[in-house]
Amino acid sequence: MKAASEMEASSQLHGLLQLRHPVLLAPMAGIAGGRLARAVSEAGGFGFIGGGYGDEQWLHEQLQLVDGVAFGVGFITWALHERPHLLAQAMDAGASAILLSFGDIRPFAKSVHAAGRVLVAQVQTVLQAREAEAEGAHILVAQGGEGGGHSGVRGTMALVPAVVDAVDVPVVAAGGIADGRGLAASLALGAQGVMCGTAFYAAEESLAHPDARRLLTLASGDDTTKSDLFDVARGLNWPAGPWGLRTLQNALTEQWAGASPEMLHAHKEELQATLTLARQSSDHRQAPIIAGEAADLVRHVLPAEVIVKQMLATAREALARLAPKPGG
Amino acid sequence: MKAASEMEASSQLHGLLQLRHPVLLAPMAGIAGGRLARAVSEAGGFGFIGGGYGDEQWLHEQLQLVDGVAFGVGFITWALHERPHLLAQAMDAGASAILLSFGDIRPFAKSVHAAGRVLVAQVQTVLQAREAEAEGAHILVAQGGEGGGHSGVRGTMALVPAVVDAVDVPVVAAGGIADGRGLAASLALGAQGVMCGTAFYAAEESLAHPDARRLLTLASGDDTTKSDLFDVARGLNWPAGPWGLRTLQNALTEQWAGASPEMLHAHKEELQATLTLARQSSDHRQAPIIAGEAADLVRHVLPAEVIVKQMLATAREALARLAPKPGG
Repeated sequence: MKAASEMEASSQLHGLLQLRHPVLLAPMAGIAGGRLARAVSEAGGFGFIGGGYGDEQWLHEQLQLVDGVAFGVGFITWALHERPHLLAQAMDAGASAILLSFGDIRPFAKSVHAAGRVLVAQVQTVLQAREAEAEGAHILVAQGGEGGGHSGVRGTMALVPAVVDAVDVPVVAAGGIADGRGLAASLALGAQGVMCGTAFYAAEESLAHPDARRLLTLASGDDTTKSDLFDVARGLNWPAGPWGLRTLQNALTEQWAGASPEMLHAHKEELQATLTLARQSSDHRQAPIIAGEAADLVRHVLPAEVIVKQMLATAREALARLAPKPGG
Repeated sequence: MKAASEMEASSQLHGLLQLRHPVLLAPMAGIAGGRLARAVSEAGGFGFIGGGYGDEQWLHEQLQLVDGVAFGVGFITWALHERPHLLAQAMDAGASAILLSFGDIRPFAKSVHAAGRVLVAQVQTVLQAREAEAEGAHILVAQGGEGGGHSGVRGTMALVPAVVDAVDVPVVAAGGIADGRGLAASLALGAQGVMCGTAFYAAEESLAHPDARRLLTLASGDDTTKSDLFDVARGLNWPAGPWGLRTLQNALTEQWAGASPEMLHAHKEELQATLTLARQSSDHRQAPIIAGEAADLVRHVLPAEVIVKQMLATAREALARLAPKPGG
């Protein structure tokens, strides 16, 4: 276990990612494009482009937008197995860090190491953390199930300190963190930084539809749900596991609430047709808004730079308020 | 929203509960008896006896053990509806605070107010927090689903700041908090204190079986699971809802993993017989160890006083390390 750094001081994380502020953009598939990644990196954090399920043309376009700034690319590991050439595409374009989540990182670890890039593994349990460290991850993202999109079942609050105790590499906290209070809390738990999705989903530079961003700023974490619905509707073959996709509830999630995976798969074509139509008309009563339980903390559409600065200011305030008094 | 106090300073919570340290013992049914509640209060925190499902004789015995210290009693609200006289029993014995969780607090709020006691409501969503404040709660415990025993589905990390923003009464964080890092993190999130169950389950003064405490100190949060299994096996009629009981996995939870509530109820008598036998022989391959995801952080059976002191020392260390430097 390494002690986490102070927010202002140098840390292993700062050194590895060359960042000024310990705020990482989560590689949200289709949402975290080059413009958003650039904005977060330029604000002093570290932007990951969401390589997601591997759309080569989309990735190519997004990689054009981050020229000249430090950035990373994140992949869904099991999907990268199907299109492994995307890893080289990302590294050739200058990604200094590769984030892998949900699957076996071993086939890719060697290439990332050989290219001198930073290997970031996102994990959902303490066991996975130990494995990912042994497999060569330089940084671990300990992701709680309150995060938007796919995640595991453990909560951030207890997972982060347990992972910090279990490994020697720097740990970044993710899941349910969208403001400076969450940043300060994560540092107190022993993380060296945070990775945020939902907070940046609503950023001006996000690729989310403007209606989706507006709806997010009105939502509560109470209003999220986790299901396989949209994975089936998107034709994605997620491996068996306690994953599910956390989204805001909408008419479609209500309609299919409680449906078993078998039932969803039995209605796959109907769901795919419904989603295609909903996306064409940007109808978020049926199209997903992929957001986490931190929705309550996201009230405005703002430039990513402002989000990062507000986070830092709020974290500093919280930590200054809580600083033990001499002799206390 | 009120700003949370510094750990050392006076706060609304300190004033209401007359505590020195913002560490509350969760009223774990059958585990948090008078001896444990007394030990936590004497260490400067605040002990709640676990009134649970309402065993009058047990409660009577436990209330004899807290004479002379500040203490509270916690009830499962829907169970208290069936045995409402237990509320007066607790207050007559000197409980200065009554904690209610899982059910409608309105029928009890007036009696607690009239007796001049502090009404603490444990909530699992932002909506419930708003309702409980409107219904007269003086303190809210925002409980994340990573906690042991029954809880909701939201995670502590995002729930706590959202509840702090939503209400004007002091908020206590619960779920996944078992050491000083979690205490410091909770204060950073805006809570004025923490409520801990799992950390004290393993205390020397806990009523948990010695084998159960030892097994907890060896377990990981990865090893917990949430199900209706033991509620059915205990013959408890929990109202419909996303509750479930978080326990360590054991042979019985493995055997019934994935079973629907209907299937569990269909095997109710078999489950009750199995559990009765398991309890008689203290066989924790089948009897439940009711613990939360913070299990990783609980490595030793210690006196409650030591647990409280270590928590405070660790929290102070974390907050001192993170204190912004002048000019930083």
